[in-house]
Amino acid sequence: MINQDYFINLAKEKTGDAIQTVAVAAPHDLATLESLRNAVDLGFTKVILVGDENIIKSVAEEANLDISDMELVHAENLADAAQKSVDQVNAGKASLIMKGLIDTSVILKAVVKKENNLRTGNTLSYVGILFNEDRDKYYLTSDGAMLIAPDLAQKKGIIENVVDVAHALGNEEPKIAMICAKEKYYEKMPATVDAVALQRMNQEGEITGCLVSGPLQMDNAVDLHAVEVKGIDDPVAGRADILVVPAIEAGNILLKTAKYLGGWTFGGIVVGAKVPIVVCSRSDGESAKLVSIAVSCMLSARNAQK
Amino acid sequence: MINQDYFINLAKEKTGDAIQTVAVAAPHDLATLESLRNAVDLGFTKVILVGDENIIKSVAEEANLDISDMELVHAENLADAAQKSVDQVNAGKASLIMKGLIDTSVILKAVVKKENNLRTGNTLSYVGILFNEDRDKYYLTSDGAMLIAPDLAQKKGIIENVVDVAHALGNEEPKIAMICAKEKYYEKMPATVDAVALQRMNQEGEITGCLVSGPLQMDNAVDLHAVEVKGIDDPVAGRADILVVPAIEAGNILLKTAKYLGGWTFGGIVVGAKVPIVVCSRSDGESAKLVSIAVSCMLSARNAQK
Repeated sequence: MINQDYFINLAKEKTGDAIQTVAVAAPHDLATLESLRNAVDLGFTKVILVGDENIIKSVAEEANLDISDMELVHAENLADAAQKSVDQVNAGKASLIMKGLIDTSVILKAVVKKENNLRTGNTLSYVGILFNEDRDKYYLTSDGAMLIAPDLAQKKGIIENVVDVAHALGNEEPKIAMICAKEKYYEKMPATVDAVALQRMNQEGEITGCLVSGPLQMDNAVDLHAVEVKGIDDPVAGRADILVVPAIEAGNILLKTAKYLGGWTFGGIVVGAKVPIVVCSRSDGESAKLVSIAVSCMLSARNAQK
Repeated sequence: MINQDYFINLAKEKTGDAIQTVAVAAPHDLATLESLRNAVDLGFTKVILVGDENIIKSVAEEANLDISDMELVHAENLADAAQKSVDQVNAGKASLIMKGLIDTSVILKAVVKKENNLRTGNTLSYVGILFNEDRDKYYLTSDGAMLIAPDLAQKKGIIENVVDVAHALGNEEPKIAMICAKEKYYEKMPATVDAVALQRMNQEGEITGCLVSGPLQMDNAVDLHAVEVKGIDDPVAGRADILVVPAIEAGNILLKTAKYLGGWTFGGIVVGAKVPIVVCSRSDGESAKLVSIAVSCMLSARNAQK
């Protein structure tokens, strides 16, 4: 059954004794602190709270939330919280970062800062984890939140990053659909042109560890009946594990349509730096946060093994 | 209750005695013929079948489907079927066109052909009708199937067309959300720049008969709780009737994610020519076809009154 527990149990199984530690920048709201409390209690992560000591303590006290087993690092302001979270990584104390009540851009600024040495040369991109217990299914989606209109090289980076996540989740040969508005090459639609190029790169061994197919439309990526009606003969069609979109609006709409019109849940992480960054937002529920932490822990654990 | 019957009853109410006639190009498959049979039986449209007489008759006979009360115009091939469907409009016999087993592009080629005189000077755009009985809700979405990467002028045309449809459905002041991946103006995201411009055009009376707001994200367009969490103060936010997307992939993904991951139904029509064109595809179910015909009938009836 694909639900919150599925990802949590998988994280425990995949990380084993190598429990990962998350440095949380500005956990100044109860929802973030509660999700961290749960993550610690569930036994799949350790926590360093990096932010305003007074705020963190008073939010926890007011809700009678025990945070005594979490390390607390004081930060003067939000930029300082971001920097000190990065410092925890560089000191080898944390292997993932999570944003609390702070803009993603403030965290990313610290991550990409040259002196902080967290870049790897890879593209930084967003991976959405979209799941639904009733449908017993999850998809990884990318990008949809970071790269506005990725070019071909950036799309290759997007694929490499999301493939890393799929591998960390135990899917060693994920099926990737390049989502377009047509399932045929059409020179007036740049997304289809890129999709064909990326499928070719995969076939020629330039993109590995996955099966890339495209262009495909959303229905022909996820629905076998729609694939039959259209007579598409393709190993990814109807069976995609990963949905790669052409531009930020397409990916953002995919996740939010599934959530708000379809009742799915999604979490999200930024991938491509030395450590994953959990970037859930305030309106995300408990499941979204826990699953995002769990997936990031698996990714960190796998990176450590490389 | 927003379901198939809602649109059918609305079509009967709005068109009254002015029952519209649909010219169907190449109704060579049973699904199309059955939906036309239902539409006639439900009393909201008349039908002219334009296609290969032998195919149409044998498909109907094989399924024991009575088409004796539908006019039949023989066409030699698909292009001929498209042309003769247009001819029915120009002869004043039909006020809407529907595609059967024929590519949309073949129909549109006949529609835009100068000699056929069906263009009005307006942008041609696609309007999706997305509805869900369980949620008791429908949205109009545009474009998502015709204009690949519309510029500002084309987006204005998209809005004018979809507003016409909303008016035909009885919503005289529809709330339009310009869907982006951010709800703030951001100069590096062209979709947000256009959204601001279009909202301004609406405020200054250049786009009328609706309330345009943007940029908005999908959640902040359709979900009041998400609007509260973000503290957005906007009359459209959370209450949008119409979702206008920045590019074809975004709209295509919106409709298909809602359908295939969320269980919604959608039909679609092309608007902006002298008559609406129903462009459902083979994999669309009965409801999608009937609702698309019903909405087109209302639009034709309203156009006739102008």
